Amino acid sequence: MSQDEDGDIIEHHVEEEMEKRGPRSQAASSSYVESPSAAEGHSSTQSSHRLLAYSDALISIIATVMILPVAHTKVEDNEDLRESVQLLLTAKIAVYLMTFLIVTVAWGAHIRLFQIIVRIDDCLALLNLACMMLITFLPYTFSLMATFSDHILGMLLFCGCVMLLGVIQSVIVLYAFSRPFLLNEQIQISENRNIYKHHILKVIMRVPIMCFFAGIGSFVFLQLSYLLLAVVIFLPYISQCLKWCRSKAIGPVAESPDTMLFYTYLPNEPLSKDRVEAFSDGVYAIVATLLILDICEDNVPDPAVVQKQFGGSLIAALQSYGPEYLAYFGSFATVGLLWFVHHSLFLHVVKTTRFMGLLNTFSLAFVGGLPLAYQLTHEFPRNSLNELEAIQISCVIIFFAGMFQLAIWVVALYNERETLHPYVRYGGREHVFMMAKLALYPCVALATFFLTCILSRFSAPIFHLMEITVPFAFLVLRLLVRVGLALLRLIFCPDRSNLRMVVDDEGDDESRVPFNALVT
Amino acid sequence: MSQDEDGDIIEHHVEEEMEKRGPRSQAASSSYVESPSAAEGHSSTQSSHRLLAYSDALISIIATVMILPVAHTKVEDNEDLRESVQLLLTAKIAVYLMTFLIVTVAWGAHIRLFQIIVRIDDCLALLNLACMMLITFLPYTFSLMATFSDHILGMLLFCGCVMLLGVIQSVIVLYAFSRPFLLNEQIQISENRNIYKHHILKVIMRVPIMCFFAGIGSFVFLQLSYLLLAVVIFLPYISQCLKWCRSKAIGPVAESPDTMLFYTYLPNEPLSKDRVEAFSDGVYAIVATLLILDICEDNVPDPAVVQKQFGGSLIAALQSYGPEYLAYFGSFATVGLLWFVHHSLFLHVVKTTRFMGLLNTFSLAFVGGLPLAYQLTHEFPRNSLNELEAIQISCVIIFFAGMFQLAIWVVALYNERETLHPYVRYGGREHVFMMAKLALYPCVALATFFLTCILSRFSAPIFHLMEITVPFAFLVLRLLVRVGLALLRLIFCPDRSNLRMVVDDEGDDESRVPFNALVT
Repeated sequence: MSQDEDGDIIEHHVEEEMEKRGPRSQAASSSYVESPSAAEGHSSTQSSHRLLAYSDALISIIATVMILPVAHTKVEDNEDLRESVQLLLTAKIAVYLMTFLIVTVAWGAHIRLFQIIVRIDDCLALLNLACMMLITFLPYTFSLMATFSDHILGMLLFCGCVMLLGVIQSVIVLYAFSRPFLLNEQIQISENRNIYKHHILKVIMRVPIMCFFAGIGSFVFLQLSYLLLAVVIFLPYISQCLKWCRSKAIGPVAESPDTMLFYTYLPNEPLSKDRVEAFSDGVYAIVATLLILDICEDNVPDPAVVQKQFGGSLIAALQSYGPEYLAYFGSFATVGLLWFVHHSLFLHVVKTTRFMGLLNTFSLAFVGGLPLAYQLTHEFPRNSLNELEAIQISCVIIFFAGMFQLAIWVVALYNERETLHPYVRYGGREHVFMMAKLALYPCVALATFFLTCILSRFSAPIFHLMEITVPFAFLVLRLLVRVGLALLRLIFCPDRSNLRMVVDDEGDDESRVPFNALVT
Repeated sequence: MSQDEDGDIIEHHVEEEMEKRGPRSQAASSSYVESPSAAEGHSSTQSSHRLLAYSDALISIIATVMILPVAHTKVEDNEDLRESVQLLLTAKIAVYLMTFLIVTVAWGAHIRLFQIIVRIDDCLALLNLACMMLITFLPYTFSLMATFSDHILGMLLFCGCVMLLGVIQSVIVLYAFSRPFLLNEQIQISENRNIYKHHILKVIMRVPIMCFFAGIGSFVFLQLSYLLLAVVIFLPYISQCLKWCRSKAIGPVAESPDTMLFYTYLPNEPLSKDRVEAFSDGVYAIVATLLILDICEDNVPDPAVVQKQFGGSLIAALQSYGPEYLAYFGSFATVGLLWFVHHSLFLHVVKTTRFMGLLNTFSLAFVGGLPLAYQLTHEFPRNSLNELEAIQISCVIIFFAGMFQLAIWVVALYNERETLHPYVRYGGREHVFMMAKLALYPCVALATFFLTCILSRFSAPIFHLMEITVPFAFLVLRLLVRVGLALLRLIFCPDRSNLRMVVDDEGDDESRVPFNALVT
């Protein structure tokens, strides 16, 4: 029976993959049967899969790029960390977080657009590249705005970019609707395709139009246009909240039967799981390698310096960089393991919603700060207050990155029939294991945080011990979970037949015998 | 009929996608039926798809990272570019190219490994992350070697990393063979699975063992161990050449019926097309954003400086950065369009071979140098010899990046029945269009190069004109190709029935009438 279930989970994933591809192919082939006139002369129609993967890679790099100015801010040894961190917090970190948010909002719009346009041709590919170019320029305009908050140039540039983006996206929509075989099946076979077109155009143009007014307003009263901009950026979330409040207050609004699940901004609007994964992979990959980029560029000593300062001893010269290597390996391991948790979670997620995407974005924003935090831990003298604070900041960042991952899982559980694979639903045989995986980093980070508070003299050793043990904890996690469950069972309900979560039954061959022996 | 063929190309791509997934899913499900004992207790077995995508992202970042020290080398205005370029060429560019090569060799080994292991579990995922960490450290050891070529430390670190990599990969192989349901079907159902295991282990351990000797030899005679290292790195290519020469001299060797197509190092050994695409996407994405990373970090002026030097005029302050923005947009557009060509090509490639992968690597190595070249074009005074040379270097880089893409296509044509979709084979209706797409950049780069030689005074305007017109050329390329063909037809064979490549027949509705009218 165990083996049948194993077959199940694999077939489930395979089916899921087929489904992912399925609708597109159906849409494509059926459209060619149904609309012969429109299909004529478009032999170059292509699957959009790789275009989207490339866009995701670009956007994920851009989303994390503003962490570099933060990471490269040199904290002086004689300065108090608290002060400089506060200085960082007010400016660069804020820019980083805002950029991350803006870029992910642009990314969300991009996803929405290409959930409607499921096939592309050369023209759309080129238009999309133009979009990407504008999106990659957004962080710069934003950091201009932050540095010169009383100057309208940054605002104008930002508004210009967004307006241009809106125009290009509208062109994409108009182009796609003029060649309906590029659209997804639902819209293709729908009779009121024009209504869709107008609805989508309306939603797309809303932001550029508001930016237009913000741009004009900036000549008159700059602060007001910042406010307008904030509204624009948070528009999806604000309208989501309003709708949710309304539905709670008045009761659910009866939706017209043909209302799409695109462009609704409802929290449970589906979000392409493929793209969430691709975007997250990009962010994790960039963040994991951020420190090695610095090391490769800055930490190769100059031969002349080695000769002069270290008497030609390369090893002595490199020893001064020791903490940097340690920070690199530590941050790579932590980011890699957080990716691993993310990967395990999304393996069992069947459907992604916008709300889960938002939580994922928050988690990724914290992950982006990790290399910086790790770098800080090694920049101060041993046992200084600064070092302690840097370590505690690292713990806090790890904690929140992990907590938001856990939050995705909790949100998914609320609607588990739609969003989760049966194995990890409440009572499923992988449920407890998955929870342990997700909870490991937040728990460890919290424990480390409080330990360093109590034993502040040993904060660095505790932190390094944590870095080293966590990978091994992940390796033996399945074992640990089983021990934990067995203990719980032993304490609370000696009669094991009562238990719903019979995780033990799956039985790892090596570990089964001792633990069964231990329990019974 | 035209519309039937349109259906064909889409179905073809869909089938291809199904095939891509197909073998894995079959392998997975059938294995659970065939080997019930082995499958027991492994409910956490997962598709390796996302793990590989993440690995590709990491490796592509690392492959391009050594271009950063090159790009950040400041070329002094009073210095002669030729000299400084020669200085760069000898050291940093060599390091960049060698790093790129080494990392792609490691990537090739990783592909080969995961063509055999088609499913993963948590343990393999964690081991793979350890592999990635070591691979990301390789560039640094290599740049140490290059900077301190007479010191053994770089060599020892490099050899240590490679040996550790070999050990981890061996552990992965042993682990996977102990759980055969993780392997691909061909090996799973094979009776001499042990022979495979030993063959694979032998191939994997060959490199670390040679590195071990290189490491020991470095204590005795450093130069010799560099030679040994070069042999190690080029081993696949050397053995390929030798085998190819032997097969040409003696005639093809009769292979034993059960010989795998993995770990043969033959040029036509299949290479996962998915992974070649993912790796290329990663490289193109990083390279496209390299300049904006710099801009975001360095080109936000300090408010104090703006106040002092530019009298508070932000626009004046930003104008001094103008060339950098231009370089960014230019390099983004060029890299984006080269990606577009790559995407179009691989859309019609059905099977990728190792040799095509090698050509792709060369193309990507040149693409990596593009931002640097573009940055150089704007660092010198107008109409100086330096500017001219920087522009010509850019043209040369674009030319080679495009030529290697074209080479992939030529190699694919040699074996078109296996590697290409019927539409782009010789005589297929997309054949000429594809060739035009691939030839556009090399032709334009060559033309620009010679134009700047002749009209050296107008080199900058010519170059910028090229940058601006190429995207539009891509937009109207299909039209241009048709005009070109029509003209050729008009000149060489007025009797149009003789022509094999009747591209005209597919007929874009808008363009069909005028051109038919033009021809007849």
